Amino acid sequence: MNSYIYNCFNCNKEFSAELIEDNFHYLCPDCGKAEKNRPLKGVLTVEYNYDEFKKKLNREEFLRLPPGKFWLYPLLWPINFTTFNETILNQLVLPEDQLLSFKYKGADISLMDETRNPTLSYKDRASSLVALKAKELGIKEISAASTGNAGSSLAGVCARMGLTAHIFVPSSIPSAKRIQIQSFGANIYLVDGSYDDAFDLCFEVSKEKKWYNRNTAYNPLTIEGKKSAAYDIFISSKGKLPDIIFIPVGDGVIISGIYKGFYDLKKLGWIEKLPKLIAVQAEGSNALVRYLEKGKFEFKPAETIADSICTGAPRNLFMAADAVKITNGKAISVGDDEILSAQKLIANQFKILAEPASSAAFAGYLKLSEANEIASKEKVLLIITGNGLKNITVSEEWNKIPKSLSFSGWKDFFSIK
Amino acid sequence: MNSYIYNCFNCNKEFSAELIEDNFHYLCPDCGKAEKNRPLKGVLTVEYNYDEFKKKLNREEFLRLPPGKFWLYPLLWPINFTTFNETILNQLVLPEDQLLSFKYKGADISLMDETRNPTLSYKDRASSLVALKAKELGIKEISAASTGNAGSSLAGVCARMGLTAHIFVPSSIPSAKRIQIQSFGANIYLVDGSYDDAFDLCFEVSKEKKWYNRNTAYNPLTIEGKKSAAYDIFISSKGKLPDIIFIPVGDGVIISGIYKGFYDLKKLGWIEKLPKLIAVQAEGSNALVRYLEKGKFEFKPAETIADSICTGAPRNLFMAADAVKITNGKAISVGDDEILSAQKLIANQFKILAEPASSAAFAGYLKLSEANEIASKEKVLLIITGNGLKNITVSEEWNKIPKSLSFSGWKDFFSIK
Repeated sequence: MNSYIYNCFNCNKEFSAELIEDNFHYLCPDCGKAEKNRPLKGVLTVEYNYDEFKKKLNREEFLRLPPGKFWLYPLLWPINFTTFNETILNQLVLPEDQLLSFKYKGADISLMDETRNPTLSYKDRASSLVALKAKELGIKEISAASTGNAGSSLAGVCARMGLTAHIFVPSSIPSAKRIQIQSFGANIYLVDGSYDDAFDLCFEVSKEKKWYNRNTAYNPLTIEGKKSAAYDIFISSKGKLPDIIFIPVGDGVIISGIYKGFYDLKKLGWIEKLPKLIAVQAEGSNALVRYLEKGKFEFKPAETIADSICTGAPRNLFMAADAVKITNGKAISVGDDEILSAQKLIANQFKILAEPASSAAFAGYLKLSEANEIASKEKVLLIITGNGLKNITVSEEWNKIPKSLSFSGWKDFFSIK
Repeated sequence: MNSYIYNCFNCNKEFSAELIEDNFHYLCPDCGKAEKNRPLKGVLTVEYNYDEFKKKLNREEFLRLPPGKFWLYPLLWPINFTTFNETILNQLVLPEDQLLSFKYKGADISLMDETRNPTLSYKDRASSLVALKAKELGIKEISAASTGNAGSSLAGVCARMGLTAHIFVPSSIPSAKRIQIQSFGANIYLVDGSYDDAFDLCFEVSKEKKWYNRNTAYNPLTIEGKKSAAYDIFISSKGKLPDIIFIPVGDGVIISGIYKGFYDLKKLGWIEKLPKLIAVQAEGSNALVRYLEKGKFEFKPAETIADSICTGAPRNLFMAADAVKITNGKAISVGDDEILSAQKLIANQFKILAEPASSAAFAGYLKLSEANEIASKEKVLLIITGNGLKNITVSEEWNKIPKSLSFSGWKDFFSIK
């Protein structure tokens, strides 16, 4: 069995797994605080017995594992996998070939392509782990606030595992994401307000209803689940990590998760240096950028076409800020127009229809590249977090309906005599 | 190098690969005929030197190959793979875990899940092979008529390979499919009319413009490409084939391709019996069902919510009919209401959001099962040909926008005091 503890990111106190899990704590029992429209305080991380793990599996053995199947190395997860059979776990498998390599204007650019995950987004990584934990704890109902991807992911995973999902979304949610959530039989609650409001409302209702809350960052397993991308990057690149990773940032949990995965690998002594993590936000939703500039958080309602990263109060703000600082990374903003151009360019250059938030990652790369802030020998990775078909309203902006063509008039249309 | 010939499905004459390919023949040079709103006559199939293949690879070695990578057994394809490097081929890889197993009301049901292919549909199988052949022949521009999936697939594959795609679609195409096609930089032509009209128009224009025509069935490589699912089923089931396969049928090329794959395996002596192939059509688009009943083809404009299988003139009608007859299968129709219920049931039972055409396969299963036409020990496979996000208008039918909820009123909404 694996042994792990929970550690508070704010006060740094350590807690046993039993204390946290048996009492259904989410945040630090001492200093944790969840407030309306504010980043969370006292988010918990999971710490493992790395020496114990190394005795069971060495670097070379780890690198020979297939990517996308995290249960093959159970000691790095806060889950007791022995209670699950292979059928359940195999429903959670991600594609093996997510890491794609390209040349772009002479530079080496890789993409982590999460657009073909079971529900077509990165969020499957977190939902899987949370749902396994719910099963382990004997919980039947899980809730989450979502801009759409976390919700459709949790709905899909819960359906596979026979759990009930309750999903709180802003009423502006793109149709495709709403339909995914409903199709998988989840209960959906359309909140008149922003994602930030949905987050706070899910928090209140779940407390009353005693639902297991998957709210991102609030549930520490969301960060743990999202760390698996770092392992998959390590495995798929055969240990040759990229130098810089561009990550779209809303609540800041994907960047925190990726940081955590590399942190684990460093603790294991398997990597020396962490890649620089670049947080990319939309200009109308850039609380992390402003926090890093001014040293304090200020709530400002968010607005951007990149619906997945539209949040005025990034719940994992402090951890995301640390991930940027510790890795010598950076947080930058890109405009909605830059996101749109980047979406078009990704389709054109890398042949992937990425959703707007994912396109922000590439827009961020273009910005730093044009400012000569990337050395030519640096290997770049972009995290492509979700499929473009999840929000087609935005891609319709650059894909207008063309004039139609009648059968009788085709020769004129094609200038054929 | 592999050796193969072309064989006419109508007059049964054989032609050398050189004669067909060097002269850009699509249909049989002797009896081939393409007419407006009619099934094609003289469709060509490819025959291999099966003895030569068996000397290079035996059944057990074949079964150890990973599914989804057809170029690993080059002798069963009409392509000279030595001209392609791994980078190009790796862009065409399909997920390894497409064959999913479930229990449904006590029965063993498997799904071939094509919803996570590179462009989220079965059509990637055909587009890949056609694009490789175009490359081999030194052709730069490819055309296709499509209800949407073949087009978005060809657009995606062409983009990856640096080829230009010209896609003819009915103007009623679902937005998501149109956007996929446009995003990948293809030229799209919205035809005022049906898919049948788009097919005929693509035929005319391509002849004038000398574009390589991927029109389904017309280009024999579409049937060859679509056969790979049979191999993948064989590999993934470790040689234990299903007894009955339900396949949605529009033009009849998927069912012909799957038949062809099993035909190859039988020629190799690796399987004894072919699974029964059940062709499922929509009631408003059931030319194959009527052809098998009456023994003759009659054109009737098609209408169904299952846009991918909406065609009044299935171009591969005769081959599809043979596939049904030779395997002791059957062709059946299901109503649009049955397709809708099946779509909901697939999401609910198998956790996949399938597009309406794919849902027809399950509706067909339910129909035969309720009529006690399936023995309890028979293993059933459904081909899930496309992702539901490609046509959300239909799934909106059973996923209405719910009433929204205000923050201040949440206690009333959840009946909390």
